[in-house]
Amino acid sequence: MQVWFSEDQTADLRISVRVRQVLHQERSPYQEIMVLDTVQFGRMLVLDDVIQTTEKDEFAYHEMMAHVPLFAHPHPRRVLVIGGGDGGVLREVLRHPTVEEAHMAEIDQRVVEVSRRHLPELNNFADARARVFFTDGIRHVEEHPDTYDVIIVDSTDPVGPAVALFGSDFHRAVFRALRPGGIFVQQSESPFFNRELIRQVQSSLRQVFPVAGLYWGVVPTYPGGFWTYSVGTRGTDPRRPREGAWEEARLQTRYYSPEIHRAAFALPPFVAELVEAEPAGAPAGGPPVPGGKGS
Amino acid sequence: MQVWFSEDQTADLRISVRVRQVLHQERSPYQEIMVLDTVQFGRMLVLDDVIQTTEKDEFAYHEMMAHVPLFAHPHPRRVLVIGGGDGGVLREVLRHPTVEEAHMAEIDQRVVEVSRRHLPELNNFADARARVFFTDGIRHVEEHPDTYDVIIVDSTDPVGPAVALFGSDFHRAVFRALRPGGIFVQQSESPFFNRELIRQVQSSLRQVFPVAGLYWGVVPTYPGGFWTYSVGTRGTDPRRPREGAWEEARLQTRYYSPEIHRAAFALPPFVAELVEAEPAGAPAGGPPVPGGKGS
Repeated sequence: MQVWFSEDQTADLRISVRVRQVLHQERSPYQEIMVLDTVQFGRMLVLDDVIQTTEKDEFAYHEMMAHVPLFAHPHPRRVLVIGGGDGGVLREVLRHPTVEEAHMAEIDQRVVEVSRRHLPELNNFADARARVFFTDGIRHVEEHPDTYDVIIVDSTDPVGPAVALFGSDFHRAVFRALRPGGIFVQQSESPFFNRELIRQVQSSLRQVFPVAGLYWGVVPTYPGGFWTYSVGTRGTDPRRPREGAWEEARLQTRYYSPEIHRAAFALPPFVAELVEAEPAGAPAGGPPVPGGKGS
Repeated sequence: MQVWFSEDQTADLRISVRVRQVLHQERSPYQEIMVLDTVQFGRMLVLDDVIQTTEKDEFAYHEMMAHVPLFAHPHPRRVLVIGGGDGGVLREVLRHPTVEEAHMAEIDQRVVEVSRRHLPELNNFADARARVFFTDGIRHVEEHPDTYDVIIVDSTDPVGPAVALFGSDFHRAVFRALRPGGIFVQQSESPFFNRELIRQVQSSLRQVFPVAGLYWGVVPTYPGGFWTYSVGTRGTDPRRPREGAWEEARLQTRYYSPEIHRAAFALPPFVAELVEAEPAGAPAGGPPVPGGKGS
């Protein structure tokens, strides 16, 4: 069948996938929501013509977003996911036996409803520990000081309303919403195509958190495949799982492993320079940045 | 300008790049050769409508092909590159001060000539240690027993004549062409799209070499971004650089580093299963496979 969906990953680069069926299409108050059944990647969630997640490769992204902070934290009980309305990060969070409450702050109720219906493998909203707040993530964080052990931002690209999620005001609010030892992670795009964004997020995190860094993984349906995750913590070393955590949790994973956790913090030099480089005369920031050093 | 080049990465997945100019186009005895000037990736070499390399991301591929075996080997003097007519792997090989002779066996003389002219940054054929044989790589290997310390196959996808480069007969010939301690590396495609190929290459290498394994890296213009490199050695542990080698060579790199070298052998479970899984009743192969273990 010659029906194709194309995403303009940049003005000069486009990815196209063959479509079996358009399963859903609507305009919510916030964005255009589509679910496509594609031959290559199975079902695919598309927001404003940008691929968010697919059945075939979602594990690579969701496992790295959730398991790195949750295995690094000494005892993650309360977790907040901002965005991530498809439910993939929340599902992975809920696999951790230490988790007592997993909150999600998603602004667009329709994304959650559409995902429950069309992408049921991706989510687990029925878990008794899960609670979804249909609200602005920034406001939610501001209203919940000293509440969470882990906060994960699974946002859309830094365009429109998502821009504020990459800025210092938000990072400071996140710092306050975390309990001591808490860990913050946010997806921070591609080092091939979004170098200035990564530099800016890293610089902001270094100013706000005593420990900041970057790790990475591959997501085939994201531009360039090479994806980064920016991390800031209230003291916890994010670079390795806590002793015994992996064995205790007994998870079956497809991308994450304790070895991958450590390896993900080894940065190729063209990425390390985004983490280390400071313009002359800039404030010194916090202590040494963990990202960029190998395991 | 609305001129686009599209590659069908699979029957159901397509990547398209905006083209500034078609710099070269010809049909050689072996294939169609194009050089495009693209907005996103700079100059791009395309063979039979498949992207081979681009100015902007070639470093990720060529550094990982060359530096992992050359830094792992105790003293690489003589190196053979099979294929790789653009010269990118050979250029990286020649950066190693231990290398006395760097040979290339490329079947298509026109690829080398076109690359010298249109992609001069990618190659260094003028180096006195470099020698190019315009010949079939399989025959070259068969005719040079006990000759090389490192053999690297930078081939096109396993279609047509390149198929034989992924088979056991070729691997046995490579084993004989290597000197004791020698290392063989070949690009082995994507674990998202070419799972059976990786499994087959790994199985063959385990039968031929006493040490076999898999490492990986990202190449944005290859399908899925996640790229694998299969390795077999005559006894050398490929998983880490030899002591002091990195400091001595003093290379400026953009993707490779000693930390990345070690991290590249940490395999996500969905990749590790391609290396470890053996069909019931299959021969046991060699000793434990290094790939799949973290650093």
